[in-house]
This record gives sequence, C-alpha cells and structure tokens, in this order.
Amino acid sequence: MLNNLAERILRSEKSAVARGISLVENESRQAGELLKLLYKNTGKAYLIGITGPPGAGKSTITNSLTKLLREKGFKVGIICVDPTSPFTGGALLGDRIRMQEIGNDKDVFIRSMATRGSLGGLSKKAKEASEILDASGKDFVIMETVGVGQSELDIAQTADTTIVVLVPESGDAVQTMKAGLMEIGDIFVINKADREGSDTLGVALRTMLHLKMTKQSDRQVPVIKTVASKNKGIDELLDLIMMHKKYLEANGKLILKRKENLLKQINELVNNRLENKFWTSEKKSTLSSKLDEISSREVTPYDFVDELFRNVN
Amino acid sequence: MLNNLAERILRSEKSAVARGISLVENESRQAGELLKLLYKNTGKAYLIGITGPPGAGKSTITNSLTKLLREKGFKVGIICVDPTSPFTGGALLGDRIRMQEIGNDKDVFIRSMATRGSLGGLSKKAKEASEILDASGKDFVIMETVGVGQSELDIAQTADTTIVVLVPESGDAVQTMKAGLMEIGDIFVINKADREGSDTLGVALRTMLHLKMTKQSDRQVPVIKTVASKNKGIDELLDLIMMHKKYLEANGKLILKRKENLLKQINELVNNRLENKFWTSEKKSTLSSKLDEISSREVTPYDFVDELFRNVN
Repeated sequence: MLNNLAERILRSEKSAVARGISLVENESRQAGELLKLLYKNTGKAYLIGITGPPGAGKSTITNSLTKLLREKGFKVGIICVDPTSPFTGGALLGDRIRMQEIGNDKDVFIRSMATRGSLGGLSKKAKEASEILDASGKDFVIMETVGVGQSELDIAQTADTTIVVLVPESGDAVQTMKAGLMEIGDIFVINKADREGSDTLGVALRTMLHLKMTKQSDRQVPVIKTVASKNKGIDELLDLIMMHKKYLEANGKLILKRKENLLKQINELVNNRLENKFWTSEKKSTLSSKLDEISSREVTPYDFVDELFRNVN
Repeated sequence: MLNNLAERILRSEKSAVARGISLVENESRQAGELLKLLYKNTGKAYLIGITGPPGAGKSTITNSLTKLLREKGFKVGIICVDPTSPFTGGALLGDRIRMQEIGNDKDVFIRSMATRGSLGGLSKKAKEASEILDASGKDFVIMETVGVGQSELDIAQTADTTIVVLVPESGDAVQTMKAGLMEIGDIFVINKADREGSDTLGVALRTMLHLKMTKQSDRQVPVIKTVASKNKGIDELLDLIMMHKKYLEANGKLILKRKENLLKQINELVNNRLENKFWTSEKKSTLSSKLDEISSREVTPYDFVDELFRNVN
C-alpha cells in the first residue's frame, strides 16, 4: 500500500503527491514510513525559499518565477506556508486564482500548509513536504513563507537559496535589519520598485550588506528591483538564483549547507517524538487535576514539572 | 544565597532583578530554584503585550504608555523581545536613548531579551522574566515584541491584554489578516495616524473585527488612532486597556486566560527539559559520526532517529 504510494509519487502522479503531503501534514504514522521509502530519491531538487513582510508581493514573485522556470522546461513544486487565521480560512482569493493558473500545469504542484491550530512542527512538515516534491521529480521546490517571525525564517532557511522580498514601504532599512531578515537573505528583492523610495531602500540595503560581507562572507549579496505584477526583473532574479546555485556547488558549500539543515531536521524529529512519548494519558490527567492548584499558586509550575519527571522511567 | 537574591527581588532592588533575569536568560540551574521561591508572590502584575510589524512604533508607544502609567503612580516593568541580528548587536540607538530616559526612574525596569543564537525557549524565558518583574512589585509588565512571526505572537499571547500596533502603510488590512495578527489583538492601534491611509485601514479593520465578533466573541475589539511620537491618543489607549482589564476580571475570563497560559508554560518547561535530557554526549557523538551517511542518503534521518530512540532507557 505504502510501497504503491511511493512508486506513484516517484512517477510524479499528482494525486499521490497530494496524498503523501496530507500524510505528512496530519502527522500520520505512515508518513515516516513513506519518507523512508522516498529518501534515497531526494536531494535532486533545488530548494528556493521566499520570505519577507506581508504585502511585499511574495506570491506574485513565486508565480512569475514559476512561469519562467516552466518556460525553461523545469518542473516546479511550491509550498506556501501560511499562518492563516482560523476565521478567514485559508489563502486569499486573489492569490488562489493567480496560483490556480499555474497549478493547472501538470508539471507544477502547489500546496498551502496553514498553521491552523497547533503550530509545533510546521517547519518539520514543510521540510517533509519538500522531500515528497523532490522525490516526485521536481527540479525546483519553492517554499514561500508569509511573515518575518522565527518560524517563517526557519522554514526559509531550509532552502538552498533564500530570497528576501521587500517593498519601498517596508519601513526604513534599519527596521528590516531589526526583523532579522538581513542574516538570511542570499538575494534581496525590492519589489514594486516603481514606487517611491525604492532607490533609498536599495542604497541602504547595499550599505548594510557590504558591512556584513566584510565581516563574514566571501560573496556580495545582490539586491535587485522587480515589479513582479508586470513581470519586470524576473529574468534577472532567476539569473541571480542560478549564479548562487553555481557558487554553492563550486566550493562544496551546498553540501555543507544541506548538512546543517539535516541537523535541524533531526532535532525537530527528535523533539516531536519526545513530546508525544512524554505526554501519556496518565500525565495529561495529572496535569488537568493539578492545574487549579498551580493556578492558585499553591504549587509552582516548576515543582510540578519536577514531579512529572520523577515519574518518568 | 538564592534566598537572599529572592528577598532582594521582592524588595524591588534593581540590581537583584537584573541578576534574576540574567539567570533566566542564561538558563542557569539556579533560575528554576529562584522562580520557585518567587512564585507565590506573582500573579499581581497585569501583563500587557505589544506587537505588530517592524516600524510601527511599538517602542514609542511603550515609552509613552510607561510615562503615563508612572504619572498615575504605577510601577512598570518592560521586556523588549528583539530578534536582533548578530551583526548589528542589540537595540537601535534611538530606541535605546528614548528608553534610557524612563529607565532612570527607580520604579521602571527595562530589559531587552535578544534571540541571538539559539532561539528555543525564548517565550519561556520572556515569561519567566515577567514573573521576576511581577514578584518585584511591578503593577504592569509590558512585553514588547518585534515582528509578526509565531514566536513573537506566542509571547504577545502570554499577556493579559494584547495590543496590535499597525501603521497606515502596514499594507492593506487583508495582508494584516494573513499575518495572523487579527486573532490575537484585544486592542488595535493605528499609530502614525496623521499619515495618509489611516481612515481606510480603520474602516477595514473594524469591518473584519465585526465579522470576528459575530462569530466568536461577546466583546467588540476596539480600534484607536494614535500619534505616539506626539503623545496623541495614549490616554485613550490606557483607558481601553483598563476597560479590557475590567472586562476580563468581571466574568472570570482573566483566570481562564491565565490558566491557558500556564498550560503553555508547563509545556515549554517540559520540552526544554526533555531535550536537554535526551541529547547525552554519547548521542551527540553518534549523530556527528552518522551525519555523513545520512547526508549521502545511505541512511535516512527517519531510520537514524528510530535508532537513537531504541537506545533510550
């Protein structure tokens, strides 16, 4: 049954890929087995992370970039990680319609992963979904993440090339720096560059990236302008991605980067399993029966956790 | 020694409070013991979370709000959670200078907690720091978080009242929704409201919040305009905070909310401890010796993790 699913994923059947990602998303027991079967067929896709503040036009860039990759004959998988609110229920209609257009292509697979409910393990799940797309023969997997928080940054960082998308209105560059985006970008895009302020932002970004370079890297991080809605600058963006790919491959950095990501992945697998193993139904009921006492400060949460651990083993 | 430190914290000595938070921040063994000693003296401070996208003016609002709380005779603790980049090294100079002014007041305590290096447990640490400030007799503890990612949202949500700060340029309200901010705000602030677009944003926010209310709440979430740099609207903001406080206290919701936060806190304490316990030096060295095989896809990370767990107990 799982062998059959794995084979169908390797043959790139859309319904099988969708099923595989659902297993991952639902943290099904079968997911681990499926990933084991597929693992030796992974590592071929090149992972592109796209992140940046809300409203920067990441979806539009993903869309234009995908079209261009398709024109060049590459197969593309897309994972949109979306901290969607429960009451709006999913991706925005506009994005969805835009995406549907490319999604009809048999060599493009798009999947949204929302943070609905439990957030734990989202970057684990996104990584595992990318492995399924990788095994299904996609040449490029794009991970698009909304927001500039740590979980989104974590996901973007599992990519081989991380693109940070900003807009002239993203606030002064200093604020961008504060949000931790400066560290993770391999390529910076100033989108909606036909708006006022794009030159100022460009100069500020370059200055800061130059400072960074002299400190810790042998590669100048490029900054380019795009107007993704008009398809402007997308060719140049793809050229920069390809240059970064070559740079990583030429000096063994790609292997190193992927090893670091592997370490993170193993850590998350371990944490996930530890947590599931620890919270037996017995411990859960101890917690609910003691919560009032902790809440009224008769028992401290620190002593309570000590107690939980005394009963382990 | 720790008893002495605890007593000095209860007497609100700044140097002791600083030392206590450092223990928490460095995950010292003594931190847990200190928090146990202080726990029965906590639960008195009212926690205010302030979050929103970079550049929205959160620091300025924190600053103005603190001054106003001081005028009314309240003691204030401030924790700024700042995903600062390693190469810029800390808070922005402007923020720092502004903050220094209020920080000289003996009844104000300000502490920045950066996400430098390991990010795990940041919300655990921030929560523990707020307990120390609480025990030291602060009437209000403000937790200011930069960014709109999940870790920042988690921190903001440990507060009793969560304030989401936006600016007219925050992008259309739809994008805000996408960033998951709509769920967590008890009060929405449109700061820099003298700029163009604040009315449009206000209407859009109110419409969405109204939708939300009809679905799941008995309270209309207020939206107000401020110009924090000119101290405009800060009185109204404090009134809204006090109204929300009364609302929570009147119908038992505060106790319920704090119980939920307690559950999260216990979860984080457990995860932290599980992780530290699991990664013995033996397991760490197994990992480094096997990493190459996993990286070259001879062994899958899933089988490797299975193996690690077989050796547990």
